[in-house]
Amino acid sequence: MSLTTFTETMRPAIEIELQRQIVRLDEPHTRPFYDMLTYHMGWTGEGAGPEATGKRIRPLMVLLTVAACNSVWLHAKPAAAAVELVHNFSLVHDDIQDNSDKRRGRETTWKIWGMPMAINVGDALFVLSNQSIMDLSEHYPAEIVVKAATVLHNTCLDLTRGQFLDMSYEDRKDLSVEDYWPMIAGKTAALLSACCHIGAILGGVDESKQDAYRSFGHTVGLAFQIQDDILGIWGDEALTGKSAASDLLEGKKSLPVLHGLSQGGKFAERWAKGPIQPNEVEELAKILANEGSYEYTHAMSRQMTTLALDNLREADPQGKAGEALMELANLLIKREQ
Amino acid sequence: MSLTTFTETMRPAIEIELQRQIVRLDEPHTRPFYDMLTYHMGWTGEGAGPEATGKRIRPLMVLLTVAACNSVWLHAKPAAAAVELVHNFSLVHDDIQDNSDKRRGRETTWKIWGMPMAINVGDALFVLSNQSIMDLSEHYPAEIVVKAATVLHNTCLDLTRGQFLDMSYEDRKDLSVEDYWPMIAGKTAALLSACCHIGAILGGVDESKQDAYRSFGHTVGLAFQIQDDILGIWGDEALTGKSAASDLLEGKKSLPVLHGLSQGGKFAERWAKGPIQPNEVEELAKILANEGSYEYTHAMSRQMTTLALDNLREADPQGKAGEALMELANLLIKREQ
Repeated sequence: MSLTTFTETMRPAIEIELQRQIVRLDEPHTRPFYDMLTYHMGWTGEGAGPEATGKRIRPLMVLLTVAACNSVWLHAKPAAAAVELVHNFSLVHDDIQDNSDKRRGRETTWKIWGMPMAINVGDALFVLSNQSIMDLSEHYPAEIVVKAATVLHNTCLDLTRGQFLDMSYEDRKDLSVEDYWPMIAGKTAALLSACCHIGAILGGVDESKQDAYRSFGHTVGLAFQIQDDILGIWGDEALTGKSAASDLLEGKKSLPVLHGLSQGGKFAERWAKGPIQPNEVEELAKILANEGSYEYTHAMSRQMTTLALDNLREADPQGKAGEALMELANLLIKREQ
Repeated sequence: MSLTTFTETMRPAIEIELQRQIVRLDEPHTRPFYDMLTYHMGWTGEGAGPEATGKRIRPLMVLLTVAACNSVWLHAKPAAAAVELVHNFSLVHDDIQDNSDKRRGRETTWKIWGMPMAINVGDALFVLSNQSIMDLSEHYPAEIVVKAATVLHNTCLDLTRGQFLDMSYEDRKDLSVEDYWPMIAGKTAALLSACCHIGAILGGVDESKQDAYRSFGHTVGLAFQIQDDILGIWGDEALTGKSAASDLLEGKKSLPVLHGLSQGGKFAERWAKGPIQPNEVEELAKILANEGSYEYTHAMSRQMTTLALDNLREADPQGKAGEALMELANLLIKREQ
């Protein structure tokens, strides 16, 4: 219940703050460029609307953390916008890199305006995230702004590292379960970790609590990604909007797959022979489960979930916002239920 | 003479600072990614060496400005690295967008590692520029760091604007001379302006001097680009390393071309018929000159040069560093002599 109350107030505030940041590009000469960004953000063009904007989970994490530190979340809006802009910058470039035609049911930026323009759209979103984080100066002392910006920049380097690993894994045959963690640490956990860390810095709690929030964001990110991996192979199409086992078709090096490959059984044997075909996926998902990968991945998921909730207890979030943060964590990490 | 003395000390310091920044990526898991960045920076791989690094003009501008403000340039090294990293980020993405195979005589990053990896290399260079500028905290108060970072981020948005205009001009037939200025303001002048502006902020001079340095960087950038446009059509191959008139072959919307098109004469007539062929360029360059574009572009060049030197006098750079900055300005804007 708490979460709904907060999101009803915070979501519009996040949207308005994002618009305030992106409107910097709205000049007569560069109007079509501005339009590309507002399309990607889900505000304009075909299919615009709540379905197209995404859930804005990351900015919500920032603002709920600030509120759970008994601080004024309204002041932290530029940081909330900054993390969402970083996320969207990475989506635009990711769609080019993965050659993806669709994002949230709509054509991707590069598909509409071409690859060169889309690179530039991603770059601009990234610049705008930097400008946003500096806007914290409106309400926080410069030392805090520098600290928050440094966390964000370090996180962005982790993102590029995760992206590198993800791309470099595509052609590799020698991967093991250990190779999974540095990849998803960068791809998924780093930014969620930064959301909570920056929220705690702006919330003014002490270093040990900041650390607890940072760890919470990290482990909740890992737990979330493992859940996503499970859904990608054995999961519920109604829940994810993508067909179960689509990760097998795409050859994605998810945790269950890396575990299955390390078993050297029937799954690994079939995988080595080349791309999986649609008529094989159901049977192959069963084989993978039989070889222990389903059990292993669920065990990892439970382990990360426990860790995440431990971290959150340690952070000791306060009041209704604390309850809402707990609710959000549960939503993120218990998607299969 | 002053310039040589300074560059002999500053150039190695810039290179070491750049290495200190980029080494953040040097971890066992991401070593091949790190190698891509050191290749692009001109330090490793085939053809590595001084020829491959470029002249590091932008970081020199930062450090000379700091010194010309009677301040300690050594403290400003992270800002010098930041502007060079921004420049290199834009080169990596530009080479993808322009489909360019070569950069400073070597294969481009995307040509070696493919487009998806190269996008990520550019992104990482951009992140590293953000981390660099935050490292000013080692020697400057947080307020100054925030101010310098804000200038850098605003500049980066101008870069994406300039890049958008450059790409969108490719297919446009309705361009006039007025369309030239916002494009090169973003593509060339913005970053040189930021170098001098940030240098002046770190140098601790008053607002009016900061403005003068900022304007100097801007006008010297415009003058430099116009010179480059002249050389690209009528210029000296030995000086530029590219054949004269290559801008005509590439269909580049440079200042002489935009002027020529606005004349509606023989040049415009030929241009409208499609891509220029190698056997036409010499004659077409003559036609363009006869239609007044050579004279017009030179007049603009002289005008910007005068403005730049006026701005620099107003900034009143001090001592030997001031002389060196003047020398550097002359080098940049009098390349045809």
